Amino acid sequence: MDFRRLAYLILCTFGACSASKPNFVLLFADDLGFGDLGCYGHPSSLTPNLDRLAAAGLRFTDFYSTCPVCSPSRAALLTGRYQTRSGIYPGVFYPGSIGGLPLNETTIAEVLKTQGYATAIMGKWHLGYGAKGKFLPTKQGFDEYLGIPYSHDMGPCHNLTCFPPDIKCFGYCDPGVVTVPVVHNDNIKQQPANFLELEKAYSDFGTNFIINSVKNKQPFFLYYPSHHTHYPQYAGSGAAGRSLRGPFGDALLELDDTIGNLMSTLAQTGAINNTLVFFASDNGPELMRMSRGGSSGLLKCGKGTTYEGGMREPAIAYWHGIIKPGVTHELASTLDILPTMAGLAGATLPPVMLDGFDMTDILFKHGKSKREAMMYYPISPNKTYGLFAVRLGTYKAHFYTEGAIHSATTPDQDCPGSASLKAHDPPLIFDLEADPSERYPLPLKDRPDVQAVLEQIKNVKAQFEATMVFGESQVLKGSDPNLEPCCNPDCSPKPTCCHC
Amino acid sequence: MDFRRLAYLILCTFGACSASKPNFVLLFADDLGFGDLGCYGHPSSLTPNLDRLAAAGLRFTDFYSTCPVCSPSRAALLTGRYQTRSGIYPGVFYPGSIGGLPLNETTIAEVLKTQGYATAIMGKWHLGYGAKGKFLPTKQGFDEYLGIPYSHDMGPCHNLTCFPPDIKCFGYCDPGVVTVPVVHNDNIKQQPANFLELEKAYSDFGTNFIINSVKNKQPFFLYYPSHHTHYPQYAGSGAAGRSLRGPFGDALLELDDTIGNLMSTLAQTGAINNTLVFFASDNGPELMRMSRGGSSGLLKCGKGTTYEGGMREPAIAYWHGIIKPGVTHELASTLDILPTMAGLAGATLPPVMLDGFDMTDILFKHGKSKREAMMYYPISPNKTYGLFAVRLGTYKAHFYTEGAIHSATTPDQDCPGSASLKAHDPPLIFDLEADPSERYPLPLKDRPDVQAVLEQIKNVKAQFEATMVFGESQVLKGSDPNLEPCCNPDCSPKPTCCHC
Repeated sequence: MDFRRLAYLILCTFGACSASKPNFVLLFADDLGFGDLGCYGHPSSLTPNLDRLAAAGLRFTDFYSTCPVCSPSRAALLTGRYQTRSGIYPGVFYPGSIGGLPLNETTIAEVLKTQGYATAIMGKWHLGYGAKGKFLPTKQGFDEYLGIPYSHDMGPCHNLTCFPPDIKCFGYCDPGVVTVPVVHNDNIKQQPANFLELEKAYSDFGTNFIINSVKNKQPFFLYYPSHHTHYPQYAGSGAAGRSLRGPFGDALLELDDTIGNLMSTLAQTGAINNTLVFFASDNGPELMRMSRGGSSGLLKCGKGTTYEGGMREPAIAYWHGIIKPGVTHELASTLDILPTMAGLAGATLPPVMLDGFDMTDILFKHGKSKREAMMYYPISPNKTYGLFAVRLGTYKAHFYTEGAIHSATTPDQDCPGSASLKAHDPPLIFDLEADPSERYPLPLKDRPDVQAVLEQIKNVKAQFEATMVFGESQVLKGSDPNLEPCCNPDCSPKPTCCHC
Repeated sequence: MDFRRLAYLILCTFGACSASKPNFVLLFADDLGFGDLGCYGHPSSLTPNLDRLAAAGLRFTDFYSTCPVCSPSRAALLTGRYQTRSGIYPGVFYPGSIGGLPLNETTIAEVLKTQGYATAIMGKWHLGYGAKGKFLPTKQGFDEYLGIPYSHDMGPCHNLTCFPPDIKCFGYCDPGVVTVPVVHNDNIKQQPANFLELEKAYSDFGTNFIINSVKNKQPFFLYYPSHHTHYPQYAGSGAAGRSLRGPFGDALLELDDTIGNLMSTLAQTGAINNTLVFFASDNGPELMRMSRGGSSGLLKCGKGTTYEGGMREPAIAYWHGIIKPGVTHELASTLDILPTMAGLAGATLPPVMLDGFDMTDILFKHGKSKREAMMYYPISPNKTYGLFAVRLGTYKAHFYTEGAIHSATTPDQDCPGSASLKAHDPPLIFDLEADPSERYPLPLKDRPDVQAVLEQIKNVKAQFEATMVFGESQVLKGSDPNLEPCCNPDCSPKPTCCHC
């Protein structure tokens, strides 16, 4: 049974029948942990709109990003390929980075453009800027762009304060580099960004994009990679102080408000009956830096690590009247979004090595995942070490572990940056369903069943690594201060003159 | 506005109008942590019936039991009074315990009996057995009883195995003591208990009780203190191996099945329109003993401690058509159940010092709690140390902390039994809304706001402790092997002859 056809049939039944292709709204949070949403059990987060999406949609319990930090995770999301293939490693891009997501990589936006979609992105790109903005989203299939090209701490944090004053803030808003710009399409619209009013700009941009697309009878793809819950957290006047959870809660609430606005617009335009809304996050929580951060709930550690807290994410799929409400325990990943959207749009897949699987069975039938394994690359992967961990079915084997500064305030001694690289031979094996917190490694001695699982995992790992061609690192191309975005490119002295 | 009246009006509207008082079903889980249910974010628990209750009812995020272990918590639940008043401390009752919940304490069942209620309990009593069963539920307001008088590990664990074999099991099923009996009303019905068929017996007992009460047009109170998720976990053939989460998941699933059966019976008899169903748990999770235990989610530590993981519990209130679905962040406790049910039944409160508050504003209006504070007594309270912690509003101050063997496998060094008693002067203060995991104690230095909070907490603590009269300890009365329940009281040699 072709579920796209079923979707159309149902739409017809409800009078919203058209030959149009489905729309996609892809919401992507920043450093938001597995335990951060109300619908994932957080006791004091206020996320009414996301909770509503979860209640009326499909909530994933075993959904993964591909890297415990930002740029690589976003590259994998948009290309359906592990970041090692596209060269988005080690770590992340900075304001003057020379490299970016290679233009010959095919993004979801480019896939959908072939089918006549209107495409837009608002929020944090973080896949390179480059000389004259040559790596901006407009070069990767997006018709329109409003947002910041990298993380909002990569500047002197104009208007952002370290709060509450009672905690030791580590990390810093990089001093001395150019202030964060707001880019509209290919041009710097504002520098420095006024973060306290930026969320409203996003909401207006997204709302208008939906309205115009519907008016033009054009199927649309809206990608909203929010930077809101990344440190340092902030919120505009509409949300500041309104949550129960301090600055992180306020930031999350403001993001949730925007999602509410987008959902209202979908409803008001009628597009809601023909739109797949997908929500996920780029990596696990940074627990405390500049202010108290997110929560990985019952998962171990957070951002920067290949424990579950680093890469297992909240994820919700919603399609009014098409996706049946529920919870799925099926294995899925950000990698699977490109093939799923491509399939629903009737597009051909890019002729490259893809790592994603079509999720339509999970979404529309509450069925089985085509994905059997998930690979865990660290922040700084290389061919010598290869994968740090592999999940096969419900079992996960750690071949290497290391801590990360991002996880420094968890009580787990395996998390902080001081927990240096450790090889595990034999690997640490966990049954993630019985033991999602990775507390009880399974012994191999006298356990032929566990030994067999490990052999299977080793085979899957070997097969995968045999196909892995590491793309040239775009991050190691380094930085050139002259490439830092400046609204006034000929001014001097930079970066202080880049205020417009 | 009187919400009982509103309830009746609504019931009338839907044709279920009667002069009858509302029914109550009180579900009480054992060692079930804050993070253990699907609706509280656990990724692999299967709790469809409880999740449905939560989705259609009111889910609490800030609900507390009064003690991090079993007997005291149950005493407080049934009397609406901190366990120190009734003498249910230190620790718990054992098979030969001389003491029990004093008969002059007034339980919810006794309160409701004055209003003509049929009352029944099925499951684990754990408030004493005493000479000739003088402390059994039938002496405390319950018409009918089916269950075990104490924890199911307090015997040689017939049919219960330590699983999975790969983990080090600590703790043990007490060897050499009498085997656990199943008591029906005042008589031992089976000894040793056949645990693998007991859940079905509970389900039948509860179902019949509801059907008969409806047939007799009698309002009813069913109390189901399940022992299912206490260690060692087990499940009958209907649930064993059916969950994703091993023995703990199977036990939880079998409990959830029973809840489903009770809900179906309420629906089939029409009683569902006039029944408040309330679910909570006695204390936080025992993380690993005999098998892998529960999860406190993002909360710190577990059973046996006065950190949040020891006493903050999942709680759900459901009343078809009367309670609006949602989530409440209001402060509430097991102590508040007696006054709430008494009020709804039109009963007079017992003329004793009560610690509970009527929750009807929270339940029926999503309104504010009358409760401003929550007191944390350790397992072994005494007058010298007094309260270990106090929560006032969103702030919690720890005056003492200690670990517990029950929390031994958390990564937090403050949890295990080796973390001995520690006085905190000044106390450790946390903002539980911003920091539910109790990771970042607030500094007092240069923080007059925090200093003011601490002063308020100290005042509340002093006022509370001035009113606290410690009842004579029922637990310290000790044990008499001759009081251990035996189905064949004159047999010899005991306890081995107590098999019937």
